[in-house]
Amino acid sequence: MDMNNRERAPSDRRRYLPSLDWILNYRRADLAGDCTAGFVVAVMLAPQGMAYALLAGLPPEMGLYSSILPLIIYAVLGTSRALSVGPMAVISLMVASGLAPLAAAGSDRYVELALSLALLVGMIKIIMALLRFGFLADLLSHAVISGYTSAAALIIIADQVRHLLGLPLPRQGVFYQSITGLMGGWQPNVYTACLGLASVGFLLISKDPLRRFLKRLGLSDGQVVPLVQGAPLALVAAAAVWVWGMGWADGAGVAIVGTLPRGLPSLDLPSFSADIVRDLLPLALAISLVSFTGSIAVAKSLTSRRRQRLEANWELLGLGAANVGAALSGGVAVTGGLSRSLVNSAAGANTGLASVITAFLIAIVVLFFTPLFYHLPRAALAAIIAVAAARIIDLRTALHIWRYSKADAASLGATFLAVLVLGVEQGIAIGVGASLLLLLWRTSTPRVVELGRLDDGELFRSVAHHRVRTYDPILILRIDESLYFANANQLERQLLNEVAERPQIDHLVLVFSAVNYVDASALETLGRLNEELAAAGVDMHLAEVKERIMHSFSKTDFPQLLKAGCIYASTHEAIEALNRPKQASYHI
Amino acid sequence: MDMNNRERAPSDRRRYLPSLDWILNYRRADLAGDCTAGFVVAVMLAPQGMAYALLAGLPPEMGLYSSILPLIIYAVLGTSRALSVGPMAVISLMVASGLAPLAAAGSDRYVELALSLALLVGMIKIIMALLRFGFLADLLSHAVISGYTSAAALIIIADQVRHLLGLPLPRQGVFYQSITGLMGGWQPNVYTACLGLASVGFLLISKDPLRRFLKRLGLSDGQVVPLVQGAPLALVAAAAVWVWGMGWADGAGVAIVGTLPRGLPSLDLPSFSADIVRDLLPLALAISLVSFTGSIAVAKSLTSRRRQRLEANWELLGLGAANVGAALSGGVAVTGGLSRSLVNSAAGANTGLASVITAFLIAIVVLFFTPLFYHLPRAALAAIIAVAAARIIDLRTALHIWRYSKADAASLGATFLAVLVLGVEQGIAIGVGASLLLLLWRTSTPRVVELGRLDDGELFRSVAHHRVRTYDPILILRIDESLYFANANQLERQLLNEVAERPQIDHLVLVFSAVNYVDASALETLGRLNEELAAAGVDMHLAEVKERIMHSFSKTDFPQLLKAGCIYASTHEAIEALNRPKQASYHI
Repeated sequence: MDMNNRERAPSDRRRYLPSLDWILNYRRADLAGDCTAGFVVAVMLAPQGMAYALLAGLPPEMGLYSSILPLIIYAVLGTSRALSVGPMAVISLMVASGLAPLAAAGSDRYVELALSLALLVGMIKIIMALLRFGFLADLLSHAVISGYTSAAALIIIADQVRHLLGLPLPRQGVFYQSITGLMGGWQPNVYTACLGLASVGFLLISKDPLRRFLKRLGLSDGQVVPLVQGAPLALVAAAAVWVWGMGWADGAGVAIVGTLPRGLPSLDLPSFSADIVRDLLPLALAISLVSFTGSIAVAKSLTSRRRQRLEANWELLGLGAANVGAALSGGVAVTGGLSRSLVNSAAGANTGLASVITAFLIAIVVLFFTPLFYHLPRAALAAIIAVAAARIIDLRTALHIWRYSKADAASLGATFLAVLVLGVEQGIAIGVGASLLLLLWRTSTPRVVELGRLDDGELFRSVAHHRVRTYDPILILRIDESLYFANANQLERQLLNEVAERPQIDHLVLVFSAVNYVDASALETLGRLNEELAAAGVDMHLAEVKERIMHSFSKTDFPQLLKAGCIYASTHEAIEALNRPKQASYHI
Repeated sequence: MDMNNRERAPSDRRRYLPSLDWILNYRRADLAGDCTAGFVVAVMLAPQGMAYALLAGLPPEMGLYSSILPLIIYAVLGTSRALSVGPMAVISLMVASGLAPLAAAGSDRYVELALSLALLVGMIKIIMALLRFGFLADLLSHAVISGYTSAAALIIIADQVRHLLGLPLPRQGVFYQSITGLMGGWQPNVYTACLGLASVGFLLISKDPLRRFLKRLGLSDGQVVPLVQGAPLALVAAAAVWVWGMGWADGAGVAIVGTLPRGLPSLDLPSFSADIVRDLLPLALAISLVSFTGSIAVAKSLTSRRRQRLEANWELLGLGAANVGAALSGGVAVTGGLSRSLVNSAAGANTGLASVITAFLIAIVVLFFTPLFYHLPRAALAAIIAVAAARIIDLRTALHIWRYSKADAASLGATFLAVLVLGVEQGIAIGVGASLLLLLWRTSTPRVVELGRLDDGELFRSVAHHRVRTYDPILILRIDESLYFANANQLERQLLNEVAERPQIDHLVLVFSAVNYVDASALETLGRLNEELAAAGVDMHLAEVKERIMHSFSKTDFPQLLKAGCIYASTHEAIEALNRPKQASYHI
């Protein structure tokens, strides 16, 4: 049966709006989990949002703004109930390095461009959703994503060191400049360095060690998760109080966040023109691809855990609309983050209501509590960024891939190095290119396996791995690759050499059981090969050609060119037909 | 048996210099053919060389210079005995459109850059030969080459109209500019237009109609070929005499070739610097790729006709050295041309000596006869270019490909349009990109075929196309594609849907006979699929996994994750193992 490219239609309601499922059928039992998760994620997101906005070179309040409207929009339009959207470290890094050549970080023009960028990213995703381009999420292999993420994390950490230690250095565009910059400008501010390193230490202890400690005290998961996830907020509060109490902001030169505007952001359309689109399009495409692929991977692992369906195109639409929402409400580009989504899920999020509650709580912070962040030292936020970045360095996947396939590991390594050496935008292009080259390389030298009959039955297996019966005047070769322009000539050479080595051969049977398509270039090569073999006194035959390829062949005169004038349904049948007359002539 | 990537060593002598085969063993019987072919090709090449140099925006004598030293070098270093190297229309077009932004056509700087370009093309080919990159000739599919060539021919014809009719127009960079330019500047010079159109008419008549006529007169092939191939030279001579006799050059404003320098070119190293390499590298790479792919295709069809071996890396070396020779002796980039090589072969060329004789005759022309070309009208050369270009428009291949595969036809069409709209350099990049995207698209939705047992034997075939026996609690699906990042997720969705549609299923047997590799991304997807199926109460099994993939699997814990804890060698074995206990339990 043919099931190519078929998908089952979702129920009509889901077709229009996936979230109607939980909105119309909201169950009271889900409420407690949603409230807890909403609260826990808000506690986590408030400092994270500010930190990631700073990482993007933007004022911290933009991170908070990105954590209100986009969350509500995604809850309504997205398909994954536990995915938590908001600012994310890798995306912020891409924003910063992409906008750096266009405007000075933090300038009005820079903020304007960041808003236009979020709008463009949103529009790209919506257009891709309408064109049903959700399959683009598959363009990045696991290896490329893993290499990309780890390198981006290293760049982020290298960049945060100057905030952690209070070094008087500007942001650098490329990794090695950050490193050489650090070596050149090693004049730490002692107060900042103490705060920064203490913050890093606190965050490191507050994760797994704190969790284990609280568990040993006998606390339940429901109590442990909020306490552990609240650590960054506790750090932020403690650091702000400390700096305020010690007067380190004025006297000791510790950089602080300063005045944050109070009140909800106004809704404004960012500036948008052909020039802006031209300047920002490559960056917006790269961000769209990375953030969509990342979100889909996160959403997939969440839904497969909970047996919910995920539709890539709805997901694109939800994320796109969330970005448009971010752009309208003065925020940075958002995406679904892994750690936050896992926390959301672990804290009990059952429906999108959890995200709505998070948004509501962040809105309250923005409305009433921004003055509390005045004395918050930037070193504490840098510690949050650096520790989060360190956690996304993905050595385990790299080792796993290295063990399984050196070729995949090479594409991981190429992406990793490209991001470090060339930067995050070129890195992703090189990652995609490396994956495609790998595909080409993998298929460019078709494996050819000699077969023989197994146990006098109908099955034929490799002569190298099985005790099989072979037939002197007949060479049976299975071709283990689809045939197309990049490997057809190579195959032709291989087969001619094989035949030249065996002067006793009269028939060459090519078994096509592992050939899934034959393109026009390869068809021409097969025709030429048939002629060349005929000139060498060898008849070429095909067996086990798939229906789809037979259908294409039938539109050409290729089958008639073969000596037997036909293509055998099975290797067994081919050998029966070719071996019989020979045996007969031997007996006479 | 495993024959992956193995090649047989050529004999020792051929290893060092393929041409030694015919130089050391030259047979007297070959001499007559070589002399005739050498003469015929020289007669053809003299006007072609001048015309193609003009097409490249260069003085006509450079075309003649390109037809001396490069031919001798290729005869010694190349592998194809009948391939005729020299200037070629498509390459000249690429030179012209690539150099146009860098210098004014015909200026000293332009000529200098053209020489440096030929040197760079030669060096790239030599380096590729030493790195054994001959396989790069396979990067361009037949469809891409066909679309590219046809579009380039259209561009050439549109550009030659102004010379044919004597329109006062400059060369335009892009096809539609040529067309709009023609519509805007429609002030033909009557005398030039008469000459141009008469030349085109003469060339059209002198090919097939003349050949048929001469054959009907009873002439042999040996007499017909030189007469037909001499037509362009006859045209050139007649046109020059006409313009001289009528005094059209001065009085009527007919553009003529004018003074050509007499004597052999001096040997000089073209200017070469880092700046020049940077400016010319993309162009040189594009020309190298196109000319190498084209030459290889021509050489292959010639050698397969004559049962000679061709080695891509030697071929690269020969063509590279020929280009270096062209650069040193004041010529344009050269390559193996199809029509000229076919003429060479048809006129009886047996060895490389034919090309050496051609070079010798062209050298005599350059030494003594260049003044005869003074009154040669450019319209006659434009006619030669336009008629040659019209002959390389390749509708037959396009139709053939369209019938065989719509996808291949799409890549042909994309390349054709890209060349017309964007130009010859971007066109080739888009052609390569289109081929790769096609590859991705072809493999992105794996075909899944349900199997059943054929005639109670060991073979399993598609339930859609054969009368087969199926087993109620067992679903047997053959996956007709290698699994990798771009299709693994799609496959996962398809399989989950298939299983969801069949609640009676307990076992899913995936037959991997057509799966040729599984990359790291796909391995992870298979692991997740196994879990998801287990959660739905279905056991996943694999059968007929190829040795190479088994070897990779064995480095991971994936086989142990499967319910059966093993992978079946054949579908037959899998069904025997899975069906037995079930049947037993039915009987109880």
